[in-house]
Amino acid sequence: MTISVRGYAAQSASTPLGPFRFDRRDARADDVAIDILYCGVCHSDLHTARNDWGFSTYPVVPGHEIIGRVSAVGPNVTKVKVGDHVGVGCMVDSCLSCDACEDGEEQYCRHGMTLTYGGRDRVDASPTQGGYSEKIVVKQDFVLKIPDGLDLKGAAPLLCAGITTWSPLRHWKVGPGSKVGVVGLGGLGHMGLKLAKALGAEVTLFTRSPGKEDDARRLGADTVVISTDPAEMASVSGRFDLIIDTVPYAHDLNPYLPTLARNGTIVLVGYLGPLEPAVHSVPLLLGRKALAGSCIGGIAETQEMLDFCGEHGITSDIEVIAMADIEAAYARMLKSDVKYRFVIDMATLKA
Amino acid sequence: MTISVRGYAAQSASTPLGPFRFDRRDARADDVAIDILYCGVCHSDLHTARNDWGFSTYPVVPGHEIIGRVSAVGPNVTKVKVGDHVGVGCMVDSCLSCDACEDGEEQYCRHGMTLTYGGRDRVDASPTQGGYSEKIVVKQDFVLKIPDGLDLKGAAPLLCAGITTWSPLRHWKVGPGSKVGVVGLGGLGHMGLKLAKALGAEVTLFTRSPGKEDDARRLGADTVVISTDPAEMASVSGRFDLIIDTVPYAHDLNPYLPTLARNGTIVLVGYLGPLEPAVHSVPLLLGRKALAGSCIGGIAETQEMLDFCGEHGITSDIEVIAMADIEAAYARMLKSDVKYRFVIDMATLKA
Repeated sequence: MTISVRGYAAQSASTPLGPFRFDRRDARADDVAIDILYCGVCHSDLHTARNDWGFSTYPVVPGHEIIGRVSAVGPNVTKVKVGDHVGVGCMVDSCLSCDACEDGEEQYCRHGMTLTYGGRDRVDASPTQGGYSEKIVVKQDFVLKIPDGLDLKGAAPLLCAGITTWSPLRHWKVGPGSKVGVVGLGGLGHMGLKLAKALGAEVTLFTRSPGKEDDARRLGADTVVISTDPAEMASVSGRFDLIIDTVPYAHDLNPYLPTLARNGTIVLVGYLGPLEPAVHSVPLLLGRKALAGSCIGGIAETQEMLDFCGEHGITSDIEVIAMADIEAAYARMLKSDVKYRFVIDMATLKA
Repeated sequence: MTISVRGYAAQSASTPLGPFRFDRRDARADDVAIDILYCGVCHSDLHTARNDWGFSTYPVVPGHEIIGRVSAVGPNVTKVKVGDHVGVGCMVDSCLSCDACEDGEEQYCRHGMTLTYGGRDRVDASPTQGGYSEKIVVKQDFVLKIPDGLDLKGAAPLLCAGITTWSPLRHWKVGPGSKVGVVGLGGLGHMGLKLAKALGAEVTLFTRSPGKEDDARRLGADTVVISTDPAEMASVSGRFDLIIDTVPYAHDLNPYLPTLARNGTIVLVGYLGPLEPAVHSVPLLLGRKALAGSCIGGIAETQEMLDFCGEHGITSDIEVIAMADIEAAYARMLKSDVKYRFVIDMATLKA
């Protein structure tokens, strides 16, 4: 049994997204059916629509920052009930039995997480489709509860941009006294500033563009460093315990390495590709520094982040758009012309 | 007051090492004067003699794996006494007051450690000269005690090759149950195998060259993987908590990244330069893996390693040479034709 739903899909790497009707499964015993209210727009959506990473399959319905209301539940569902506000992030399943899954790090499942879109359902091998649509059906283990009182539109980007910056902050034990740098002031970067600040860290934004100081300070930065200015970079030499690099395109990491403190780590969360220009090893050896990667976060960790955001009143700064305006939004994202995340009001899909 | 000593020096990047007479200072109040018995031959000696790193100054007396006997001490020296067997490693001073020094990580001193050779004395700015010589004078804080019963010749390489592999093993908390890979079976690599095994880890050697299995197993490897064989590499996918990469020349790190376990780290201890070919970020993100560097180890940590080696009867596998044979030894090192460290018998300097 399936239900027919409306969505927006890319039909190829070179065609604009447009209306697309497709089937969702009826809720299985442990499934939650969700009416989608809002969906954030992530750089990954654009990378996938355009096949920038080379593994896209079409048609693809992007969207993995999903906020909705539970419309039905399977008989085994205990986590949520009809009417609850819930979220779905970048993954909708994993093996749930390997060491990674048992450690609550389903994103690193040894058998591969099932991506919210562009993946294959583990039961029937049908292609998964994302949140640019009116409904989604997801196994309860991968459904997040949205704390009461959190603005639903602004909460959508927490499901990817939020957890992607939260996970390294927690893994590297950021708290009061920590010195954290965030590279890039986009969807991920602005969440990194907010979350690092709320965790008690001293926070610095690295940006190529002057003129972001006021906004960065409002979002949580104590300091703003223009990354193209060698004197400003030298002023923070040896400073950071953790740098979260959110830039989704190739860029030179070498200027950042000397700004790490001894035992400091720069963690890439936005870029998939070869590290060019070549990273130089000397700054890594002189201070036991590390260059790491991090990918979203586990389900329990995502719930922890949502609950933290509920307690601290943290949401994303967003601009709400209609579904039909997605291509214009992508064009503006490519120019970094968004403060700081587009969120699609899914009611506009029906209009 | 200075004393004239004999040694072997490189006079330029292109001239062979030869006899060189130079001055050592008289012992200051907190200094230890040491008659050098043995000195290990490290790749860094060769890199420095040839100016491979571009910052050599000449003349330079290499050597930072020094074993000797205390011949005199300054009035404030309490750590050792005349007649003790002692060691000196890669550094002979640091500021001793910054956070790194206070944490016992003098190698990462914010003001720069004083290298055993090719550095500048912190008091009188004279060039430091290394262990290819009959005597050395070193501040007591940087003098190591050699445990009774440890073979003195075989202990020399512990001062660099030993501590360089020990420090990451300890920092990344290797012990029983840990899975450790070691890349390269040279001076550092063979110590990495011995030390990781003695710490209780399950140890794998990565090597390009077949035929090293028996030797690797004797030194502590449970498994030997030919790094140029994709099938063998695939057989250890997702396996290692820590890989210690001892290769002192540029090489492709990408084949190793998928062999790291979730949260695993590959740590470079031998190579100074750009990471070419470019490291790909995807394996770092998918499993929160890290690429790090590590530089020798602190003084307390070096003493800990020496004491551990004393308890476990661990020394380096060495080939003893005469001082006059140093250029032949360098030529053989470049062909990896040494099992596994050359050690100069400094008595041959006087011959």
